[in-house]
Amino acid sequence: MAKIGVLIENMFEDSEYEKPAVAFKKANHELVHLGIKKGIVQGEKAGIKVKVEKAVSDVVADDFDALFIPGGYSPDLLRSHDEAVDFVKQFAATGKPILFICHGAQLLITADLLKGRRVTGWKSIIQDIKNAGAEYLDQEVVEDGNFISSRYPADIPAFIKASLDKLK
Amino acid sequence: MAKIGVLIENMFEDSEYEKPAVAFKKANHELVHLGIKKGIVQGEKAGIKVKVEKAVSDVVADDFDALFIPGGYSPDLLRSHDEAVDFVKQFAATGKPILFICHGAQLLITADLLKGRRVTGWKSIIQDIKNAGAEYLDQEVVEDGNFISSRYPADIPAFIKASLDKLK
Repeated sequence: MAKIGVLIENMFEDSEYEKPAVAFKKANHELVHLGIKKGIVQGEKAGIKVKVEKAVSDVVADDFDALFIPGGYSPDLLRSHDEAVDFVKQFAATGKPILFICHGAQLLITADLLKGRRVTGWKSIIQDIKNAGAEYLDQEVVEDGNFISSRYPADIPAFIKASLDKLK
Repeated sequence: MAKIGVLIENMFEDSEYEKPAVAFKKANHELVHLGIKKGIVQGEKAGIKVKVEKAVSDVVADDFDALFIPGGYSPDLLRSHDEAVDFVKQFAATGKPILFICHGAQLLITADLLKGRRVTGWKSIIQDIKNAGAEYLDQEVVEDGNFISSRYPADIPAFIKASLDKLK
């Protein structure tokens, strides 16, 4: 079973966190919530509360088997902190799965990890994804090596399926 | 006196809208608030309410002498609508002033207007600005031709001053 680091901050898209989180736990994977600092963060619309167990500055990539980045405005808040961007870079260097949806790709753009990759994401960031050197695909889920990405909440079932397959 | 179109949606950064808006009106400029549809939009933190007087799809660039784009998550919401992006492109083609702060540059990135320009913006979008082909400058205000840009709320006084000079 995989130990999944969940990179999360306030204003995450509630369903994009909760539905995959429930599915991952049901499949016996372990989730560890990582943020800028320990404490409670809250979803953007439904106001779901999530406990950040560890500050991203207190962990290393080797602690986790996969990374999950929910969407909403959480990725934009995270990427204004160097320690979150550095952790994503460090984790990507391991080649282990990175699962991201909606605005999640923003963190990978700031970490300069999208050159030559095939990814998808929310409409507002399509140009940013292309400008970062990636090929944008308008699909419910895009798998490219260790990257699994989806566009928005309607894609969650496909995102969960592809993620669980990748974590096997 | 200039007629300024204010491109605004929910979750705008309250002070980045309100302080320049007050200063522009005090200098006898006229503000017309443009959004995806007419109605009330609300700021992200202080919850300031702003009345959107016109849908961006119902106006043309020639109606305005300048464009003002406050920050927060308003620009990200706006750029997921083609009509907002198209209007910004159309307005930019006139060469008239575009005043933007914080996340405001996101709209210009999606409209593909930053190639070869010198601009500034909020920390989280620095990589997006560079990837869009612009030169990012870490200054309280950057003036490049018809573009005036600033980084965050502390820059507002410099942003107002440069904007008012440009509108003379």
